[in-house]
Amino acid sequence: SANRLAGFGTSIFSEISALSAQYQAINLGQGFPDFAGPAFLKDAACSAINADLNQYAPSTGLPSLRAAIARTWERHTKASVDPETEITVTSGATEALFASIMALINPGEEVIIFEPYYDAYPPNVLMAGGIPRYVRLSEPRWDVDFAQVRAAITPQTKAIILNTPHNPTGKVWSRAELSQLAAIAIEHDLLVLSDEVYDRLVFEDHQHCSIATLPGMWERTVTISSTGKTFSVTGWKIGYAIAPNPLTEAIRRVHQFVTFASATPLQAAAVVGLNAGEPYERQLLQFYSARRTQLVKALGDAGLYVLPPQGTYFVMADIRDLGWDNDAEFCRYLISEIGVAAIPPSAFYHDNYQAGMVRFCFAKKPETIAAAAEKLKRLG
Amino acid sequence: SANRLAGFGTSIFSEISALSAQYQAINLGQGFPDFAGPAFLKDAACSAINADLNQYAPSTGLPSLRAAIARTWERHTKASVDPETEITVTSGATEALFASIMALINPGEEVIIFEPYYDAYPPNVLMAGGIPRYVRLSEPRWDVDFAQVRAAITPQTKAIILNTPHNPTGKVWSRAELSQLAAIAIEHDLLVLSDEVYDRLVFEDHQHCSIATLPGMWERTVTISSTGKTFSVTGWKIGYAIAPNPLTEAIRRVHQFVTFASATPLQAAAVVGLNAGEPYERQLLQFYSARRTQLVKALGDAGLYVLPPQGTYFVMADIRDLGWDNDAEFCRYLISEIGVAAIPPSAFYHDNYQAGMVRFCFAKKPETIAAAAEKLKRLG
Ligand SMILES: CSCCC(=O)C(=O)O
Ligand SMILES: CSCCC(=O)C(=O)O
Repeated sequence: SANRLAGFGTSIFSEISALSAQYQAINLGQGFPDFAGPAFLKDAACSAINADLNQYAPSTGLPSLRAAIARTWERHTKASVDPETEITVTSGATEALFASIMALINPGEEVIIFEPYYDAYPPNVLMAGGIPRYVRLSEPRWDVDFAQVRAAITPQTKAIILNTPHNPTGKVWSRAELSQLAAIAIEHDLLVLSDEVYDRLVFEDHQHCSIATLPGMWERTVTISSTGKTFSVTGWKIGYAIAPNPLTEAIRRVHQFVTFASATPLQAAAVVGLNAGEPYERQLLQFYSARRTQLVKALGDAGLYVLPPQGTYFVMADIRDLGWDNDAEFCRYLISEIGVAAIPPSAFYHDNYQAGMVRFCFAKKPETIAAAAEKLKRLG
Repeated sequence: SANRLAGFGTSIFSEISALSAQYQAINLGQGFPDFAGPAFLKDAACSAINADLNQYAPSTGLPSLRAAIARTWERHTKASVDPETEITVTSGATEALFASIMALINPGEEVIIFEPYYDAYPPNVLMAGGIPRYVRLSEPRWDVDFAQVRAAITPQTKAIILNTPHNPTGKVWSRAELSQLAAIAIEHDLLVLSDEVYDRLVFEDHQHCSIATLPGMWERTVTISSTGKTFSVTGWKIGYAIAPNPLTEAIRRVHQFVTFASATPLQAAAVVGLNAGEPYERQLLQFYSARRTQLVKALGDAGLYVLPPQGTYFVMADIRDLGWDNDAEFCRYLISEIGVAAIPPSAFYHDNYQAGMVRFCFAKKPETIAAAAEKLKRLG
C-alpha cells in the first residue's frame, strides 16, 4: 500500500460500533440518531425516487439544493452567497473536507488542527501530503491558547481546521474567540476550513457563528456542513462546502473526480428538509435540549462529572473520580461489563493524550438514554 | 489552489450536458438512462427509507450488500470472494477507483492508462502524485499493441488501469488479450485496476471476462464495478471494489476518510437489485441490444460509419465521411445546429488526439433514439 497510509489506522467509530454490537451494548459511541428522521423528509426522498430523479445530479449538486443551502445560509448569517459559483454539494461533510484539503494544500504545507479533533482531519491532511500541526484545547473548559496557535505557525503553514460546534467537546467557539483566530489567519494569510456540521445544535444562550462572516474572512474560508445531523439521516451523506469562487472552483475540480456527485433523490429530499426552515430547527433543538439534560443527569447520577456541552450531540464525562485514567480501557470495560458504548477521546489526540474523559452521544430516544442510565448506575 | 490541479480541468460530461441543456438538444452525450430504473428497485429504496435505514452504514458497506456482491461475482466468475475482507462499497465506481489509486500509488510511481480513457483516470493518478503513461488503442478496432505496453513500462511502473467493457469504444477485451496483459503484469509485478462498470452490457457472442480470474492475477487486481449502469440508477452512486485482503485493507483505510460510507437506503435497495440475478440481467441485455441496433442504424442512415460496440451503452461514429475532422467542433455543431448531443473523444486522449469519431449513448428510450434519428438525418 502507499506510504501515505502509514500515518493512520481504522476509524475509532467503526471499532467501537463493532465492539458495541458484539456485546449488544447500548451504543452511545458513534454519533448517529437511533430514532427516525422526520416523516416529511422520508416522504420527500420516496417522492424523488418515484419521480425518477435517479440519474446523475450535476457534479456541483442539484441547483435546487444549492439554492436551498444559500437561503439557509442567508437566513442564519445575514450574508449572501451565490449558489451557482460558491456552493458545492458533496458525499457528506467528510468528502467536503477531504476535497477541500486536496484542492488547497500542497505536499509539505502545514495545517493547524486543534486537539481533540474529529478523526478524519489528520488522515485528510496526510493524504494531501500536508503536515498536521497540533494545538491542544485546555480542559475542562476547552479554552484556546492563542499564543500556542501563533507559536504553531511557520512559513509553511497554509490553513487552520476549525470545528464549531466542536466534536467531541461540545465547545461552541464564541465570536470573541473566532475574532482572535481570524486575526491570526489574516495576519499570516492562512485559509480556514471550518467544519460546522453541528451548526443547528447549540444550547441555551450560546450562539453559532460562522467565521466566514467575520471581516476579511470570507475570501479565505471554506465552510463545511451537511444535512445528516440536522435532519437525523446521517446515512444519506449529503454534505456541502461554501467558499468564495476561486476556492470553490478548486474544490469542484477535485470533487468531480473523487465521487462526481452525491445521491440525486436524497439531494432532492434535502431541499424539502432545508425549506422546513426555522420552525423545524426550533423543534429539533427542543428535542435535543431535553436529551442533553437527560444524559447529563444520568452521567452525574453515575458519578461521572460532566460539563454540559454548549453544542453538538455529544457530552464529555470525567472518568477520574471513578478511579480510571485510561479512556480506552474504561470504554472496553463500559462496553463489555456495563453494556454501554462510549468513545475514548484519546483517539482524537495525535499522541493519545489522556484527558481523563470519555464521549457519550445523546442523539438517542428518551428510552435509550433511560436504559443506558439504568446500566450506568452500576458504575457508582 | 494546490499544484496537483494544474493537470486537469472540468469533466467533459458536465460541459456537454450543460451545452445540451442550453440548446435543448437530445442528450446522447453523458452516459445515463433517460428511462426509469426498475419499479422493484425503487420500491426497495422507499422501503429501506421507510424502515429507517437512514443512519451511517458500516464504512465497508452493508453486510447484506457485500454478500450480494459476492454472490453475483461467484455466479459470473465461478470464483469465490470473501465479503468480510475482500469487498468495499464506495460512492460509485468513481470513488472506488480514486480510493484504490490513493491507497496503492505513491508519488512518482507510474500508471499505464489506455487511450481513449474514462476522463477520471488521469486526474485520479495525478491526485495521488502518480505519473500517467499512455498507451493508445488503435482504431478502428481498438486493438492493443502489447509491444507498446511493454515499451511503456519502466522501473517506476506500479499499475495498469484496465477498462472492460471499454468506454468510450465499446471494446470488450477478449480472454486472449487479457491473458497477454496478465502476463505483462505478472512479469513486472504490476497491479491492475480493472474498471468493469459495464460488465452486464456485452452483446452478441462477446463475453465479459474479469482479469482477476486469470491465473496469478487475483492477488494483484482490484476489480471495480457499480450498480448504476446495471440498474439504470446512475445517480445512486453505489459502487464497489473487489480485491484481495491486503489491497482491500488499504482501500478501506482511504475510503473511511474520503466519504466514510455511501447512502444506506440505496445500498439496501442495491441488495434487492443484485438478488434479481440472471433473469433481470437477461431482460436488461435484451432491451440494450435493441437500443444498440436502433442507434447503429440511425447513425448509419445519417452517413456516420459505425462499428457496432461489443459492450457498454456507447457507440463511436466516424465523422470523417461527413467532412469533419475536429470532434469538438463537430459536437458543438451537432448540439447547436442539429439538436443532438454527443461526446468528443479527444477529451479522452492526453494530447487531444483526433480519432475522427464521436461517442453517442444509447441508454435511451426507443422514442428518444427515434427522435435523435430524425434530427440526425439533417446531417446527410
Ligand atoms: C462518520 S462516523 C462518525 C460519526 C461522528 O461524527 C462522530 O461520532 O463523531
Ligand atoms: C460521471 S458522468 C459520466 C458518465 C459516464 O460514465 C460517461 O458518459 O462516460
